[in-house]
Amino acid sequence: MKIDELYALLRRRGVLWPSAEIYGGAQGLYDYGPLGAALKRRIEDAWSAWFLGLSRDYYRIEPSEIVPESVVRASGHLENFTDPEVVCEACHTPVRAETLLEKERPGGVDGLTPSQIGEVLRAHQIRCPTCGSTALGVPRPFNLMFSIPFGVDGEERAYLLPETAQGSYLAFARMRDVGRKALPLGIGVIGKAYRNEIAPRQVLFRMRAFTQAELQIFFDPNDFAVPFAEVRDEKVPVVRAAERERGHAEGEVVPASALAASGLPEFYVYHLVHLLRFLRDVLGYPAERIRFLEKSEAERAFYNRIQFDAEVFLESLGGFKEVGAIHYRGDYDLTRHSVASGKDLAASRKDGSSVLPHVLELTFGVDRNLWALADVHLVHDGERTVWRLPAYLAPVPLAVFPLIAKEHAAYALRLADAMATEGVPVQYDDASSIGRRYARMDEVGTPYCVTVDGETVAEGPGQGTVTLRARDSRAQERIATAELASRLRPTLRPPRPTDREVPAVRSVR
Amino acid sequence: MKIDELYALLRRRGVLWPSAEIYGGAQGLYDYGPLGAALKRRIEDAWSAWFLGLSRDYYRIEPSEIVPESVVRASGHLENFTDPEVVCEACHTPVRAETLLEKERPGGVDGLTPSQIGEVLRAHQIRCPTCGSTALGVPRPFNLMFSIPFGVDGEERAYLLPETAQGSYLAFARMRDVGRKALPLGIGVIGKAYRNEIAPRQVLFRMRAFTQAELQIFFDPNDFAVPFAEVRDEKVPVVRAAERERGHAEGEVVPASALAASGLPEFYVYHLVHLLRFLRDVLGYPAERIRFLEKSEAERAFYNRIQFDAEVFLESLGGFKEVGAIHYRGDYDLTRHSVASGKDLAASRKDGSSVLPHVLELTFGVDRNLWALADVHLVHDGERTVWRLPAYLAPVPLAVFPLIAKEHAAYALRLADAMATEGVPVQYDDASSIGRRYARMDEVGTPYCVTVDGETVAEGPGQGTVTLRARDSRAQERIATAELASRLRPTLRPPRPTDREVPAVRSVR
Repeated sequence: MKIDELYALLRRRGVLWPSAEIYGGAQGLYDYGPLGAALKRRIEDAWSAWFLGLSRDYYRIEPSEIVPESVVRASGHLENFTDPEVVCEACHTPVRAETLLEKERPGGVDGLTPSQIGEVLRAHQIRCPTCGSTALGVPRPFNLMFSIPFGVDGEERAYLLPETAQGSYLAFARMRDVGRKALPLGIGVIGKAYRNEIAPRQVLFRMRAFTQAELQIFFDPNDFAVPFAEVRDEKVPVVRAAERERGHAEGEVVPASALAASGLPEFYVYHLVHLLRFLRDVLGYPAERIRFLEKSEAERAFYNRIQFDAEVFLESLGGFKEVGAIHYRGDYDLTRHSVASGKDLAASRKDGSSVLPHVLELTFGVDRNLWALADVHLVHDGERTVWRLPAYLAPVPLAVFPLIAKEHAAYALRLADAMATEGVPVQYDDASSIGRRYARMDEVGTPYCVTVDGETVAEGPGQGTVTLRARDSRAQERIATAELASRLRPTLRPPRPTDREVPAVRSVR
Repeated sequence: MKIDELYALLRRRGVLWPSAEIYGGAQGLYDYGPLGAALKRRIEDAWSAWFLGLSRDYYRIEPSEIVPESVVRASGHLENFTDPEVVCEACHTPVRAETLLEKERPGGVDGLTPSQIGEVLRAHQIRCPTCGSTALGVPRPFNLMFSIPFGVDGEERAYLLPETAQGSYLAFARMRDVGRKALPLGIGVIGKAYRNEIAPRQVLFRMRAFTQAELQIFFDPNDFAVPFAEVRDEKVPVVRAAERERGHAEGEVVPASALAASGLPEFYVYHLVHLLRFLRDVLGYPAERIRFLEKSEAERAFYNRIQFDAEVFLESLGGFKEVGAIHYRGDYDLTRHSVASGKDLAASRKDGSSVLPHVLELTFGVDRNLWALADVHLVHDGERTVWRLPAYLAPVPLAVFPLIAKEHAAYALRLADAMATEGVPVQYDDASSIGRRYARMDEVGTPYCVTVDGETVAEGPGQGTVTLRARDSRAQERIATAELASRLRPTLRPPRPTDREVPAVRSVR
């Protein structure tokens, strides 16, 4: 589906809509309705099960999303977290340089200086999208952070974090000390990040407040052993930076072992494979729609030593779009915070020596992937529209219907309650024909529908059998209500990496 | 425990700590560590299971926590969401009037005009807590909202919501239209609220960013039928406003039926009882430590027609403290937003007529209750410290130990993985003696510990029996590993109101 059709469908079903909609909407802010909020929570749970399941020493914390100015000064965001902006000299409309140049430079303007951007604008005779003038001003940096006056009279300044990562760096010292944890230590955060985007657009792809799921792995650069043998034969679709510079943008599919042989550290490739498996095997994106785009030194933030963006091909947005990334940030963050705070952020090795940990950052956009799950799995299939979400991601995993509301409602309501008590989220529906009810549930991705009929009621409470209908195959079977929960429950748990017998990363104690 | 001892213990165990701790901490902001984040999530899940379980027509959404200025102008927060502040004329320190007068007016200063507050300050010769001067300035309103410059050049203004409720009011029109829902319609939000408190203190009790769980029930004032018979005999501890005005502050315990007979609407009392049951039966606060304090007309916000605050006696804070409330807000909110937005926010009745819904707000402080769960349940019991959390609230429900690490670790690790795959969050621990390991888990509230020993290993994979030790009784028993998940799982699901055979509120279709 195209973006407008997909967004209209998601709004109509109450998955999401613009914030403050009755006031005309707020740019770059969205509300999730019941289905969207449930889907978002399931994506978060699946992310946690997978990435925090990589090691017993990976933990989820919930740090503040507001930080004092000292934090963003140390992190470099106060100085560097900017986007080049151009103001039209004719109509005074500000526009992101990246937006102006998206046809001429589809890869973005990272790595260009303001004056280089100005040259490109002039060379292509770029016009103001509002008034059409070519009198565009000199590009200047625009800080994307939201500042807030903090404290009485606003004499302190605070900021809404532009990336959840900082909360993990601030927490590192405390986490290291609680239970005297050894490296590698993983700190995961699912939280909000805030950016004052000049031009929010593409619905969930450029928001002003969005949810990130991020894992920061703090490790000893001399000792980060991963079970590489478990991933070495996995085929990874990559577009290498060097190849792109030579004009080869189509990419290649290579075994993980070849990536390691090309000079990427094994720990990096190991986590790249796990991100691939998550996107392909857990979220269910087809392998051919996934690729990892390596960013060149000019494109990536200066502190990133290695960066591959995970991209998924989205029909609604007309191309491959970033949904996550892996950043090898080195010791940049802990060095900056250690110097600025005066605190020792080193960790102890077994031999008594100490080391300032390096950071491997696995970042994942929850909202973007929610959109991608709609783009990829919500399809027109003949006469029906069906959202083929994996069962453990479905907002409503189970629907319970009475065949005839007047006769079977009481039994069906009791069954729905019993399933909810068993921990299976359930929706009851007794309106219109069974076919119409199936169609409604297909559209919101419900994998299982059960229908209570005269036979069920005759068999008696707790004894009855029901018709279980599967969303994708539309196959129907008769099943005992007593077996329903134990039959469905295993399919409603998101996979963990250990499910496939991949040994977890073990810390060296 | 006193506040300092309890807070120190929670910091040491990594439950929570001040945000940006390495920079000296940020006033009124806290980070939750692994145990705190897990406990917080379980409180949220328990709240959802209970309050959204009251009706099939109660839904959770996730609205934006940032709103345009038009929203807070319409809601009245721009004008009225203020706290009287006094600035010392000698040292220029600003102080909340409520803080200055907490001994003289323990109930707070709500309902006093600025000049009345000035009189009370003078009458009691109140001194500046910083410099001791009595030269305190004239009380003035201080708006507690955080404003943020929004958009390019900050030409739009936006605000961080000071209560999650507004997100539900903004969403009402969309929710009403999706699936053409009838009244009563419940919209639940678990989200952040932000207040620029002049004097953050008492750790989680006055924060600048905190999590609320709120349910807004939109109903037809002429037709909100509740199954009152199910609650009529429940004994409710109340302190009535009229009694307090007559100097009787100790309160009384009266049946729900008597509250209804005194003139409170049945729908109000019904939800009061459900809040009582949640605090007592789900969170496990002892009945004698719970009370509902009715706010008088002078104390409550002018739009609240009825307000009872739920209070719990907390040793750490030296008295009864508010942990939730029920506000009957009438049609104030929808009227204001309807007028300001120009949108019709009425709902249809079955007979085709339309009605502007009234709102019953159930509000619940997630952070405050996290603290209360520590205050109430974390106790010194002889030689041990034990956190007697209900099993479904425990951050780590299960610990798995090898009796001897060298011999039993492999089996124990496999068992821990298997339990995690079964959906039981589990921690593995092989350090120090079994007794020390029990003690560590007691302190973090883990209800179940299992130990793998030589017998288990000899019995073989999947066949073994383990020692299951219960936290509270310290009783030990031998149980088959194959039965472990099905034995523990039912105790790890938070209760739902239908578990006790209380019929859910049904909408009139």
